[in-house]
Amino acid sequence: MVMENYAHLFSEDTASFFRSPVRDIFRRVDLNAIYSFAGGYPSADTFPLGDFRRIMSDVIDRTGAKAFQYGATQGVTELREALSARYGVPVGRIQITSSSQQGIDVCTRILADPGDVILTSSPSYLGALQSFRSYRADVRGVEYDPDPDRFAAAYAKAAEQAVSEGKRLKFIYSIPDFQNPSGETLPFGHRLGLAGVARKYGMLIVEDSPYRELRYEGEDVPTIYSIDPDITMHLGSFSKIMAPGFRLGWIFGHPDVLDKIYVCKQSLDLCPPVFDQYVAAEFISDGSLDRNLAKSKALYKEKRDVLLDMLERTMPEGVSWTHPDGGLFVFLTLPQGFDSVKFYDTALDAGVAYVAGSFFHPDGGGRNTMRLNFSFMSADRIREGIRLLASLLSDSHGQALYPARGGRDR
Amino acid sequence: MVMENYAHLFSEDTASFFRSPVRDIFRRVDLNAIYSFAGGYPSADTFPLGDFRRIMSDVIDRTGAKAFQYGATQGVTELREALSARYGVPVGRIQITSSSQQGIDVCTRILADPGDVILTSSPSYLGALQSFRSYRADVRGVEYDPDPDRFAAAYAKAAEQAVSEGKRLKFIYSIPDFQNPSGETLPFGHRLGLAGVARKYGMLIVEDSPYRELRYEGEDVPTIYSIDPDITMHLGSFSKIMAPGFRLGWIFGHPDVLDKIYVCKQSLDLCPPVFDQYVAAEFISDGSLDRNLAKSKALYKEKRDVLLDMLERTMPEGVSWTHPDGGLFVFLTLPQGFDSVKFYDTALDAGVAYVAGSFFHPDGGGRNTMRLNFSFMSADRIREGIRLLASLLSDSHGQALYPARGGRDR
Repeated sequence: MVMENYAHLFSEDTASFFRSPVRDIFRRVDLNAIYSFAGGYPSADTFPLGDFRRIMSDVIDRTGAKAFQYGATQGVTELREALSARYGVPVGRIQITSSSQQGIDVCTRILADPGDVILTSSPSYLGALQSFRSYRADVRGVEYDPDPDRFAAAYAKAAEQAVSEGKRLKFIYSIPDFQNPSGETLPFGHRLGLAGVARKYGMLIVEDSPYRELRYEGEDVPTIYSIDPDITMHLGSFSKIMAPGFRLGWIFGHPDVLDKIYVCKQSLDLCPPVFDQYVAAEFISDGSLDRNLAKSKALYKEKRDVLLDMLERTMPEGVSWTHPDGGLFVFLTLPQGFDSVKFYDTALDAGVAYVAGSFFHPDGGGRNTMRLNFSFMSADRIREGIRLLASLLSDSHGQALYPARGGRDR
Repeated sequence: MVMENYAHLFSEDTASFFRSPVRDIFRRVDLNAIYSFAGGYPSADTFPLGDFRRIMSDVIDRTGAKAFQYGATQGVTELREALSARYGVPVGRIQITSSSQQGIDVCTRILADPGDVILTSSPSYLGALQSFRSYRADVRGVEYDPDPDRFAAAYAKAAEQAVSEGKRLKFIYSIPDFQNPSGETLPFGHRLGLAGVARKYGMLIVEDSPYRELRYEGEDVPTIYSIDPDITMHLGSFSKIMAPGFRLGWIFGHPDVLDKIYVCKQSLDLCPPVFDQYVAAEFISDGSLDRNLAKSKALYKEKRDVLLDMLERTMPEGVSWTHPDGGLFVFLTLPQGFDSVKFYDTALDAGVAYVAGSFFHPDGGGRNTMRLNFSFMSADRIREGIRLLASLLSDSHGQALYPARGGRDR
């Protein structure tokens, strides 16, 4: 038998895989050669190479060969203890993951069968939508409402709807702090509402929290995990507070749920990267993390301010945007009818990249939106990039921006 | 609603998860406090800490921040190129994985739906069986036959049987070099036979090859991948030739299959650990790997010889074992009726650990077998440990060893 294609061999899940347009951009272009507002890359300036070198050398001296051996599936004790001390969560409620993306994926794996319902904010994190769909879950987006009661009611309504269809509800996915892609933070009342809906319908909450420590102004809002730790799986990440190249994150959750993740992770990859875990533990314990975080926040606050200021100065009428208190993203809304997917190639050809907002919408809506990242580039390049993007948008004012009044199709 | 348990929330896959008894041993006991023939841990003496320190420092100097940023999902170019140069496989056919366990898991994920048939040697690697079952695949073990034609015919018969039941065949899983747990190597004719059966029935072969470079005598046998690269997914690992703590492996395969793995890996964990990949690339390129491998092989050869010699000297009549040319394991067969699962607690209480052979059997057979690892402990401790194990076996000669003639039940 000649095997010309492999279609008969792939699992049903595989048909639901979809590519990240963000990752595909990175495959196509050199990010440093364009103005990249795409991606969620931290600034390379925030990676404390000197601290890394010193800590790595210390780990080799002190921990020796053990740092290079197989490690415990739940993560090395030193790192779980360092996280426990930092966040006040018992060690028995902490699982280390090989990236917080893995946290999302493994929660979905142990919870969702094909057709099971996951409720998420709309828009939401693309990598989470990829993971949910890869297990053929039924992902339903719920739009934000500034009123906490109406917000909770919208989730309750979506839950009722699913129940009336005979569907099983599994979890609510939320990024309450400096959301990806919107940059917005869920107020306390909204968090209480989500926990209430989850309790009422017997769901869990997967609280994805990679940006929480990147707050540039205002007060912390308690995590959903702190409101209801027995129904919340809280996902954390070293990517934005240390460096993404270590691929380390964590899950706080109820031990009964973590136990399933523990067994699942045995067959997924046995254990997280061991040496990297010792480095991360020391990075927390010796104060490097807090020192580095203070510097990163000052840097990112400046970049956010530059971005917001430039948007104010340059954007054509009819464009609005969010004003995040932290995180890495600002979300733009353009006039109805503007198509950020179509406009994307024009922008990339001119040397500026963003992520089209529709990719973050479970229902494919939001075509008149785009996500802009402000962490990756320097303040100067943010200025130049926004000037360029604004001029492209203004040029296309009667074309792409308002296609109904003379749009051109490609 | 009070959530007292989470049973209604778990996915159907979760019910098929089973715990690794090996990993659970590691949770219960300090491996350094007992004679551990369990596990597949490399010797800590083979980790070149000096090389690691030097290379890490070099990577920070030369690659800088890029080594700590997000990386390409398919793996960093430098590492794929280093593997390409070493193994003569085109870069486009190489995907880096976050451990070769992940290689097994992701191949299963993209290929197997519940009920799909996977053919594997019996006995086989426990972590692979865990992964196959976690996707509810129908795992069927095929016993080894020294005659290549009968060997291939047994696989063909298993395939025919599955087809006659209306099942879909997905892949053959094989560890042809120094198999886990048997330590035995598949002769060339057997490999040809497997490739032929796979072609005939439209299956892939997942060739798991973590021990291939640990050959202590005899000649290399060509990989199945080299026989038929378009139907073989070849899995490699840095765990036994560098150190397991980096959690890095690779897959060689057809680009059409790798593309599915690429998209899957985006939502699994985005990319493998980045800094670790640069370190591994340099470890290959600067010759450290080959230097270290020569030392590791000399060390392991000595340990294997000590183990085989001690078995010869101490084991009671009726016990036989394999004589591997490489790898990490020797497989013991005890008299029919001996129960290595039952005997396990006796052994552990006395301070010696092994892995019961039945855990490696997809059908739960092989209760009179056990796997002994010889890489982890020093030669002296291997001597003492085998002496202890042999005395325990001899003591229980009329009891556990031959329970039919006066066995006691616990």
